[in-house]
Amino acid sequence: MADTLNAITICGSLRKGSYNAALARTLPALSPAGLVIKAGPPIDAIPIYNADVQNSSGFPAAVSALADAIRAADGLIIVSPEYNYSIPGGLKNAIDWVSRLQNQPFANKPIALQSATGGPLGGARVQYHLRQSMVFLDGLVFNRPEIFVGVAQQKFDEKTLELKDQATIDIIKQQLAGFEKFIRRVSGKN
Amino acid sequence: MADTLNAITICGSLRKGSYNAALARTLPALSPAGLVIKAGPPIDAIPIYNADVQNSSGFPAAVSALADAIRAADGLIIVSPEYNYSIPGGLKNAIDWVSRLQNQPFANKPIALQSATGGPLGGARVQYHLRQSMVFLDGLVFNRPEIFVGVAQQKFDEKTLELKDQATIDIIKQQLAGFEKFIRRVSGKN
Amino acid sequence: MADTLNAITICGSLRKGSYNAALARTLPALSPAGLVIKAGPPIDAIPIYNADVQNSSGFPAAVSALADAIRAADGLIIVSPEYNYSIPGGLKNAIDWVSRLQNQPFANKPIALQSATGGPLGGARVQYHLRQSMVFLDGLVFNRPEIFVGVAQQKFDEKTLELKDQATIDIIKQQLAGFEKFIRRVSGKN
Amino acid sequence: MADTLNAITICGSLRKGSYNAALARTLPALSPAGLVIKAGPPIDAIPIYNADVQNSSGFPAAVSALADAIRAADGLIIVSPEYNYSIPGGLKNAIDWVSRLQNQPFANKPIALQSATGGPLGGARVQYHLRQSMVFLDGLVFNRPEIFVGVAQQKFDEKTLELKDQATIDIIKQQLAGFEKFIRRVSGKN
Repeated sequence: MADTLNAITICGSLRKGSYNAALARTLPALSPAGLVIKAGPPIDAIPIYNADVQNSSGFPAAVSALADAIRAADGLIIVSPEYNYSIPGGLKNAIDWVSRLQNQPFANKPIALQSATGGPLGGARVQYHLRQSMVFLDGLVFNRPEIFVGVAQQKFDEKTLELKDQATIDIIKQQLAGFEKFIRRVSGKN
Repeated sequence: MADTLNAITICGSLRKGSYNAALARTLPALSPAGLVIKAGPPIDAIPIYNADVQNSSGFPAAVSALADAIRAADGLIIVSPEYNYSIPGGLKNAIDWVSRLQNQPFANKPIALQSATGGPLGGARVQYHLRQSMVFLDGLVFNRPEIFVGVAQQKFDEKTLELKDQATIDIIKQQLAGFEKFIRRVSGKN
Repeated sequence: MADTLNAITICGSLRKGSYNAALARTLPALSPAGLVIKAGPPIDAIPIYNADVQNSSGFPAAVSALADAIRAADGLIIVSPEYNYSIPGGLKNAIDWVSRLQNQPFANKPIALQSATGGPLGGARVQYHLRQSMVFLDGLVFNRPEIFVGVAQQKFDEKTLELKDQATIDIIKQQLAGFEKFIRRVSGKN
Repeated sequence: MADTLNAITICGSLRKGSYNAALARTLPALSPAGLVIKAGPPIDAIPIYNADVQNSSGFPAAVSALADAIRAADGLIIVSPEYNYSIPGGLKNAIDWVSRLQNQPFANKPIALQSATGGPLGGARVQYHLRQSMVFLDGLVFNRPEIFVGVAQQKFDEKTLELKDQATIDIIKQQLAGFEKFIRRVSGKN
C-alpha cells in the first residue's frame, strides 16, 4: 500500500479576510486520501531581504521555519493573489530569502499553484511569473488543471469565507488528485 | 528653450555594496544636459504589504515619501537586480504599496529600466516582469536601448564600485538621451 | 481642428468564422470620430520565414503590402486569438517577416491589442507575449483598458457573428477613445 | 540494465547555415550513453495553421509525421533561435498544428530547450515563452542547466559550423546527462 504523502500550503496574502487564505483553508478537506495537506508557516514575519543583514545576522527564524517546512513536505501548494500583474512582494520576498539557504528547499520539490482574485482572470499572470522563478529554483511545478478563482467574492460565503462554488470545488479536487499522482511520479514515492 | 527635466532613481537592492546601487549612482554624470537625475527615496523602511495594516494605520511614511517623489519627477528610472528570475520581493513590495494610493503615481509616468547581475544575462527576466506590472499601473516604459549589465563584477571597480566599462557607459548615455526625448514626447513637455 | 487619424486592424486568425475576425470587423463602428479604422491586409499568404528565401528572393509581396499598410497608418490594432498560451504561429510569422525590413514599420508605431477566446480568460497570455515582441520592435503599445473577450461564443451572435455584448462594446469604445488620445500624444499629431 | 532512451531534436530555424541547426547536429555526439539523439522531422513544409483547412482537408502529412516522431520519442529537444523576443513564427505554427491532434503528443513528454543567438543573451526570452506554451500542452520541461548560446558566431567554426566552444560543450553535456535522468524519473523508465 502506498505511503500517505504530505503537502503544505503557503499563502501570498497577509490580510485576515483574504480569499486566498480562505482558499488555502479549504484544501485539506478537498484532498485525496493519499495526500494530507496542512497550513505551512506564515510569511508575515519575514523582513525585506538584504544581503548585508544575511551576512551579519544570518537567516531570520521565520525564514528557517519556512524552509524546514518545505523540506519536510512531499509537496508545496502556493496559494496567492496577484498584485500588479505579478507576484505579491511579500511572497516573492519570502521566496528570495529561502532561495539563499544551503540545501535550497525548492529544488526538486513538487509544487502546485492556485490563485484567487476579485477580477475575472483569477490570477493567470502571477502564476506564470511564479513558474519562471521556479525554473531557476529547480522546482517541479504541476501543469494542469490550473486553478484560477476569478470573481472570488461570488465564490466564497460572504461571512464565513467558505468556498461554496461547486465548479471551483470540483476543479480543485481534480488538481489535488493530479498533484498527488505527480508527486508520486516525480519523487519515486509509491 | 526647453525646460530641464528631472528624474529619480529607485534601486531594487538594499545592500551597501550593490552593483545596482552603484549603477544608479553613475546616472547623474551620464545624463544629457536636459535631464537632471537624482536618487529617489530608499525602499528599505517599507514593511511587507498587508491590507489590514493599510486599513487600520494608513500608509507608512516611507511609502508616501516614495510616491511623492515619483509624482514630482518627470521620469522614473528603476535600477534593480534580478532575484530568482523575477523582481526582488522588496522592490515589488514597494511598488505594491505605492500602487494602492489614490492618484496612483506610476500612471502616465515615463519609466526607464536598468539591471545589473553577476551572471551574463544582466537581468533580462526581471525587466519583462516589471514591464508587465507597469501595464496594470499604466506606466509608460521606455523601450530601447535596454540596459542589461551582465558580469557586473568585471564592469565596476572592485574597490570604488565606479562603473569603468566604456561600452556600458556608452549605451547608458544612449538610453538616457533617448529617455529624455521620450519624456518630452509622451508628456508634451517641450 | 484636429486631423482625423487612421488605424488598421491585423487579425491573428485565418478561419472565416473567427471571433477575432468578427471583433476586428466591429471596430470601425465603435471608433471615435477622430479615428478611422480599416481592415489591414490579411496574413494568410505569407510563407514561413526563412532567411535563405529572403536572401535569394527578397520579401514576398504579402509582406511588403502588410508593412506598407502599417507604415501608412497612424495606429495599428492587433486582434488575435491565443494559441497554446502564446501568439498564433501565423501572426508571429507575419511579424517576423515584417521585422526584417529596412525602415522597420513597428518602430514608434502606436499599437492597441485585443483578443477573444472561447475560454474565460480572453487572451491575457497572448497579449503579454505580443507586448514583449514589441519592446524589441520599439512599438508603442497602449496600456489600458485591455480588451480580453472571454467566453466569446456568448458575446457574438451565433449566425451573424455580430458583437452583441454591451459591456464588451462599451469597454472597446473606451479603449478606442483612449487609443486615439494616445496616438495624438505620442505622435505629436494634434 | 537500463533501457536506452531515445530523443529527437526539432529546430526552430529553417535556414541552412543556422547556428541552431548546427547546435542540434552536435547533440548526438554529446549525449550520454543511455540517451540516443536523432534529428526529428523538419518543420518547413507545414503551412500556416487555419482551422478551416484542418476541417476540410485534415492534417498535413508534415504535421502527422512530426507528431508521430514526438510520440515515438522518450524525449524532445527543441533547439530554436529567438525572433523578436519570442518564439519563431514557424516553430510556433508547427506546435499549433500538432497541438490540435487527438492524443496530443506533447502531453507528459519530457522536453529540453536550447537556443543560440547572435546577441549576448542566447535566447532567454524565447525559452520562457516556450515553457508557457508547454504548460497548456502539459509537457514536462526540464529546468536546469538552461542552454543559452550567446554570441554564437564566436562559438561555432565559421566554415564547418562545428561547435568549438568548450564551455558550451561542457554545459550541453551536463544538460543532456540531467535530461536523461529527468526522463527516467518522470517516465518511470528505469
